[in-house]
Amino acid sequence: MRHFKLTLAYDGTDFIGWQRQPGRRTVQGVLEQTLAGILQETVICKSSGRTDSGVHAFGQVVCFKSATRHPPEAITKALNAELPEDIFVFETTEVPAEFNPIRDALRKRYRYVVQDGRVRDIFAHHCTWQIHTRLDLDAMRQAAVALIGTHDLMSFESHGSSRLTTVRTIYELLIERRQGERTDHVVIEVEADGFLYNMVRNIVGTLVQIGKNKKPPEWILDVLAAKDRRVAGMTAPPQGLFLLWVEYQE
Amino acid sequence: MRHFKLTLAYDGTDFIGWQRQPGRRTVQGVLEQTLAGILQETVICKSSGRTDSGVHAFGQVVCFKSATRHPPEAITKALNAELPEDIFVFETTEVPAEFNPIRDALRKRYRYVVQDGRVRDIFAHHCTWQIHTRLDLDAMRQAAVALIGTHDLMSFESHGSSRLTTVRTIYELLIERRQGERTDHVVIEVEADGFLYNMVRNIVGTLVQIGKNKKPPEWILDVLAAKDRRVAGMTAPPQGLFLLWVEYQE
Repeated sequence: MRHFKLTLAYDGTDFIGWQRQPGRRTVQGVLEQTLAGILQETVICKSSGRTDSGVHAFGQVVCFKSATRHPPEAITKALNAELPEDIFVFETTEVPAEFNPIRDALRKRYRYVVQDGRVRDIFAHHCTWQIHTRLDLDAMRQAAVALIGTHDLMSFESHGSSRLTTVRTIYELLIERRQGERTDHVVIEVEADGFLYNMVRNIVGTLVQIGKNKKPPEWILDVLAAKDRRVAGMTAPPQGLFLLWVEYQE
Repeated sequence: MRHFKLTLAYDGTDFIGWQRQPGRRTVQGVLEQTLAGILQETVICKSSGRTDSGVHAFGQVVCFKSATRHPPEAITKALNAELPEDIFVFETTEVPAEFNPIRDALRKRYRYVVQDGRVRDIFAHHCTWQIHTRLDLDAMRQAAVALIGTHDLMSFESHGSSRLTTVRTIYELLIERRQGERTDHVVIEVEADGFLYNMVRNIVGTLVQIGKNKKPPEWILDVLAAKDRRVAGMTAPPQGLFLLWVEYQE
């Protein structure tokens, strides 16, 4: 059996998340079914991590084993011809049998997009969180500094996870405003060695509280120290979240 | 009765076009129903022109008459609170009783967005025409020059129209490439004193033939001279089209 690694994008709007579920449209389900049709064998896909219902990916990494003799480029081409218009495969490569897309990930980067202000961008409602208040980015950036580095991020972990440690290292936390034609967006990107369940959405919900000036930037220190999810801000909705990329050792 | 003019945007993806149809979701239907709920009276809306199923608007103009005593700003606010997330009202103003959004339009501008090349932008599939060939913009611009000015544009009119004359004046025809993160788009904008049925989509279908180098730029002269729809290129699909704005005399 050969082992393949796909890099792909999907618009999460019309999927009930990554994970296969009987009778529901999921990314894993659609991908496995399409691969089975192309390769004429049963295929099991494994991703770098699940994404929840409505969450998007620019550069998700997915592995599968197959007895096919086709070159990787032919698999990319066949997949893009057969997949629905909300999934696109950038690349297929062959990887060693022992490669594991979860365990071998060195770092990941997520983007979260908030559309703030009174004028709504209706064309982006499926891929932004739309809020009515103009955000104070200086306050958000001040707070974000406290999250960079290695911290116990338990306050930003939603229930439903069984991870052994809640300590993670955040390498970068970018917050910037990008101009559009009639509206603009606030882009928040988080790069870390690993992510707890709902971590980005909980960080964004907390930073938005600060951006609305409902809490001062220093509040983030209390949230971190509390190690209690209930102290942090709300979980930002799924449709603003994108998995940008996953990095592996060469 | 007072007379109001709305300027609004809609994402046409989930509408069967502008015009009210029993049991179907249309922009006119949703707008009239929402206004009736807010104003507690029957409301008939009239737009600057119908848009087909899947076609979008950034700045559609819609008029209606009402006995309401509310100021225009209160109508904007109430509409944006009640309308679904794929319609947004920028402004409501009061206009003279005789104002007619079709007859009084001086010029309009449409945008058409093509996503060309092998890498698809899956987040834009509902608002671009995705084609696999990289377009030759120089060839398209050469051809476009022939359309500027006053011409009989019969070759670009689809059936189903009863307009008396097919002569229109095109003031501007912009063709440019806009860079995205992983993919870019070709934006085609047409500004004219009036538009025939499917005119922009037929012009785009013709220019794309030239952009694919399937026809030389001079071919546009034959198409114009033929005054026959069958000679021009295909009708580009609806989801790439946006009504940008409508201009009226002050």
